[in-house]
Amino acid sequence: MNKRSVFFISDSTGITAQTLGQTVLSQFGHITFEQQVISHVNSMPKAIAAVDLINQASAADQQQAIVFDSIVDNALTEVLAQANCLRFNIFDQYVKPLELALDTQASPSVGLAHGQSDQVHYANRMDAVHFAMANDDGGRIQLYEKADIILTGVSRCGKTPTCLYLALQYGIYAANYPMTEDDLDEMNLPKALRPYRKKLFGLSIRPDRLSLIRHERKADSRYASLRQCEMEVYEVEAIFRRCGIQYIDATDSSIEEIAASIFEKTSLQRLPHP
Amino acid sequence: MNKRSVFFISDSTGITAQTLGQTVLSQFGHITFEQQVISHVNSMPKAIAAVDLINQASAADQQQAIVFDSIVDNALTEVLAQANCLRFNIFDQYVKPLELALDTQASPSVGLAHGQSDQVHYANRMDAVHFAMANDDGGRIQLYEKADIILTGVSRCGKTPTCLYLALQYGIYAANYPMTEDDLDEMNLPKALRPYRKKLFGLSIRPDRLSLIRHERKADSRYASLRQCEMEVYEVEAIFRRCGIQYIDATDSSIEEIAASIFEKTSLQRLPHP
Repeated sequence: MNKRSVFFISDSTGITAQTLGQTVLSQFGHITFEQQVISHVNSMPKAIAAVDLINQASAADQQQAIVFDSIVDNALTEVLAQANCLRFNIFDQYVKPLELALDTQASPSVGLAHGQSDQVHYANRMDAVHFAMANDDGGRIQLYEKADIILTGVSRCGKTPTCLYLALQYGIYAANYPMTEDDLDEMNLPKALRPYRKKLFGLSIRPDRLSLIRHERKADSRYASLRQCEMEVYEVEAIFRRCGIQYIDATDSSIEEIAASIFEKTSLQRLPHP
Repeated sequence: MNKRSVFFISDSTGITAQTLGQTVLSQFGHITFEQQVISHVNSMPKAIAAVDLINQASAADQQQAIVFDSIVDNALTEVLAQANCLRFNIFDQYVKPLELALDTQASPSVGLAHGQSDQVHYANRMDAVHFAMANDDGGRIQLYEKADIILTGVSRCGKTPTCLYLALQYGIYAANYPMTEDDLDEMNLPKALRPYRKKLFGLSIRPDRLSLIRHERKADSRYASLRQCEMEVYEVEAIFRRCGIQYIDATDSSIEEIAASIFEKTSLQRLPHP
């Protein structure tokens, strides 16, 4: 039976252990991994409870569970080391070689990666989220002065989630402006956008995919018809090209990929994660 | 000079390399790292360009740059291996030991971790984002039936960003309901929430911090006064306790930490990242 239990264990949120572990496991697509995150393992009783869970899983699977952990505290990692599992501790694998290379000692501290370490950056992310909410769907064009980037494109091409992602992850002030049929009739950038040409970034999408997405929202509407979607996408892309607006086809991209493409093609900075 | 150049290099978004690298580097808080993400390194010319950037940084710093990379393709990793740097390849360190332990070969594939691999899950995340937007701020209580969780608490305690984060990262349908003064006067759960008690989760916050946040929004208002904030927080927490609603103090927590606490205290599942 190709099923393995996997644990992501952390003294903080578990995001790093999970992100790393899932990336590594994605290279074993033919195996079914039963995954579990155990976060805030920051005391002896919690470490012992985690070991119990691991041992139970290994016994039930009749093969060793896999553990990715980012526990910093030595006393806790020693407890985890007793578990019946194949274990990868992130710090063991990186911190020791880095200490050698940097010729310095690490100063172990828990939960800095996704914790409260940077209040200023954190407050900035919150502000950015509220900015994105207020500037969704062309809501408040008077605030575009403050935007770091303005995403534009047809309705339902992925602008809103991308703006929120940029705000939440990177503290970027992202507004979005949907191109409507009225805008398209002008065959030019909407007036509201013209002063901000340098902040504009276009998202496009394949008409067949757009039609599917719109059908889920308003089934059998003109809005969702393939013909309407083809027309809108064709005209929006023509405007992007004519006005020199950079754009990408986001059809087969996740939000993370769209964001990565925006970073590549613009001068926007990925701030460190908090 | 305690400054080192760091590169996070990926054939996809760079999220895994950056997340891992920043967690590791957070253990060296006394060193200033100049960080750069190079994403979509998926061709020979891009790999060569990355090597050039690394070598320039190492020359300028007069010490080796540090590189975290998640490149899968062997031909490209061989190019990167020529750079003058201290390099950690995620797959080298994990995939080989896993192949041994799992007694199977990895099936290398690029960009699965944050890519378009799972269209269903991806569509679900998008729907969840639109759900969170529509259900922000008690907007559409008639949709609570569909919610996986309903966050509640005083205005500006972090409900909205947390809902959006749960939606974006995990595809969770999260609504939020702000407790207003009218609600507090009742000294009971608002009527709209009573049918959904099992889905409720409370966020609280220290009054002094709340007052600061509200002052940024509406300076010198009654809304932002410490006295008002103290009163609201006191009454909301009393309602939470009286009605058996689980809640956490989110004052010093990042969104990621709030989310991790919610997962720990509820039966909500963290779906795999897409």
